[in-house]
Amino acid sequence: MKKILMTPGPTMIPEDVLLEMAEPIIHHRTKEFQEVLKDVEEGLKYVFQTKNPVFIFASSGTGGMEACVCNVLSSTDRALVIVAGKFGERWLELCKAYKVPCEVLDIPEGDAPDPEDIRKILQKEKINAVFSTLCETSSGVVSDIEAIGKICKEYETMLIIDAISGLCADPFFMDDWNVDVCVSGSQKGLMMPPGLSFVAVSKKALDESEKKSDLPKYYFSFKKANKALEKTDTPFTPAISLIKGLSVALERIKKEGLPNVIERHNKLAQATRASISALGLSLFAKRPSNALTSVRIPEGIEVSKLYNRMRDIYGVNIAKGQGELEDKIFRIAHLGYVEIFDIITTISALEMTLSDLGFSINFGDGVSEVEKAFKR
Amino acid sequence: MKKILMTPGPTMIPEDVLLEMAEPIIHHRTKEFQEVLKDVEEGLKYVFQTKNPVFIFASSGTGGMEACVCNVLSSTDRALVIVAGKFGERWLELCKAYKVPCEVLDIPEGDAPDPEDIRKILQKEKINAVFSTLCETSSGVVSDIEAIGKICKEYETMLIIDAISGLCADPFFMDDWNVDVCVSGSQKGLMMPPGLSFVAVSKKALDESEKKSDLPKYYFSFKKANKALEKTDTPFTPAISLIKGLSVALERIKKEGLPNVIERHNKLAQATRASISALGLSLFAKRPSNALTSVRIPEGIEVSKLYNRMRDIYGVNIAKGQGELEDKIFRIAHLGYVEIFDIITTISALEMTLSDLGFSINFGDGVSEVEKAFKR
Repeated sequence: MKKILMTPGPTMIPEDVLLEMAEPIIHHRTKEFQEVLKDVEEGLKYVFQTKNPVFIFASSGTGGMEACVCNVLSSTDRALVIVAGKFGERWLELCKAYKVPCEVLDIPEGDAPDPEDIRKILQKEKINAVFSTLCETSSGVVSDIEAIGKICKEYETMLIIDAISGLCADPFFMDDWNVDVCVSGSQKGLMMPPGLSFVAVSKKALDESEKKSDLPKYYFSFKKANKALEKTDTPFTPAISLIKGLSVALERIKKEGLPNVIERHNKLAQATRASISALGLSLFAKRPSNALTSVRIPEGIEVSKLYNRMRDIYGVNIAKGQGELEDKIFRIAHLGYVEIFDIITTISALEMTLSDLGFSINFGDGVSEVEKAFKR
Repeated sequence: MKKILMTPGPTMIPEDVLLEMAEPIIHHRTKEFQEVLKDVEEGLKYVFQTKNPVFIFASSGTGGMEACVCNVLSSTDRALVIVAGKFGERWLELCKAYKVPCEVLDIPEGDAPDPEDIRKILQKEKINAVFSTLCETSSGVVSDIEAIGKICKEYETMLIIDAISGLCADPFFMDDWNVDVCVSGSQKGLMMPPGLSFVAVSKKALDESEKKSDLPKYYFSFKKANKALEKTDTPFTPAISLIKGLSVALERIKKEGLPNVIERHNKLAQATRASISALGLSLFAKRPSNALTSVRIPEGIEVSKLYNRMRDIYGVNIAKGQGELEDKIFRIAHLGYVEIFDIITTISALEMTLSDLGFSINFGDGVSEVEKAFKR
């Protein structure tokens, strides 16, 4: 059975990226690898839309998030954490692990934070850093980081963004939006296996890390990473094969052009949502990201049955909900190496699965909407 | 030009491992991946010679070392760090990053620690954990961990070992030698790309981590890793493609048999050293590891010239010294996916390079010793 992976990480990997990683390994202290590292650094700056250095860690995205917390904050700081789902919650857990006092702005899952609520908190008390999420992968919601960035600038508060699943899918402009630190991961819009995290760091945040932050750090130290990067090097043995694969993936993005990549994601998202509505299902996210579409499970159907059947009978791997949403929604990612016919396949498999499970649909109602959306 | 990589990490990767990593990516929350994880866990226990759980982190070896420090120690603890080179130094830097008070046993590079010196320190003061290194990659020295383990047991002190480059090359028996925590990495004896670290943790160390340790941790938390491992899972997105490759590499080790793998490394080391001596060069390590051979650079020759020429003219990538030894020694690793003809090639390239650089040798004097050692 042919299989496709429509999950919000890991995402499918282009064949040329896979084959690059299957090349014989090279040593990292060579000109050959330095060239790769230079290319990758440029490519990452492009996708983050930043002039800031971007540090590469061998770690999952969470490792990169921990780097943000332990480098930028100090034990006497106060953070504001915006929690609108599992990954906002992760920021909070990380701050707590380092015993940093936190203010929390809790948002119901499926909603996006209202930037004015952030202003109200910043007006009232001294906050050193605001932690938020571009695309909250657990709900499929994208936040208005541009507006949040304006407010943080006004109050001279640092803004730290988890763009792990949002990068390359949703519009994002690190420098123009006043984001101080931004973290992403390899296995999402960058079309790579998991194993790398990326952290772009502004001058202000780097200064904070090097001169003020008193939280313990070593492997994830920005200072060490920056010192090495200045010599086109890494402080510790880099994940050579993954970084070589990444250079090929970034080359693809540069060739397509970042605005076109994001427009493609937008089109795939629109097509998916039109078909979902045509099938009589209802969308969950109030401010949906281009990375994934979250769908309320219709009454009488179990998420896990739908999920298992789509995967095991039709070869289409989507995602269930996470945490409290596990049994309430399913999620179709259209993220990374995805084209219109992946959506056609997914919606076709969804139609057949819904029918198998006794949910009343007309075959083709969803698929035809994908085609129509594509031709608009 | 055909190239071979004779460095102590990264090491060469078997073709079937490379191709496994080039397979289409699968999702990690699937039975298919769980099967892989189960196999890998068993394989890792075998190479560590332990019944303890082995946690897998997406990180370089240094990340795994940091995990050892921040999980096992508390701010009120006292550590003894044995420093016999760059990687012993790393243990010390990590303890300092977490502000853990340290006693240091400094050993001249090229020497191995005398276990009785450790006893003297443990007799005098309360030490919670001793940090040492199986193979000190910077000097090529292997420590007598078995003897150190006996002493640590006597004084009820935890023993934490960096076996990053030693595992699968030097004899090592985690459980029999009373080692509490042992860290290794993927790009050495395990014949994999860099990007994974492994930490095997005894019941005692796990208890310490879960009940006592007050140092901050999240991504590298043993508690989180152990909780996930109990359900054959990982707390954060694992480096799926690397772990799949690892399952193939471990399968190779199981097929060859760990004692045979170590015997092969020993034979390659003996052959390399016999040839080095036959060429009139002198060995650096007093207690040499099976993983690599460190050689004093003869007078009148620059290490970097020898290194560059071997790599660029003959395609054989060896290693220079590190830190203070950079210009004083060169290192030939015979680690991982290495066979006798890789040594023949390396020694042949070394003979020609030495001759090119004006050092007087008889062609074949080194190579013939490799053959003789192989036939003994």
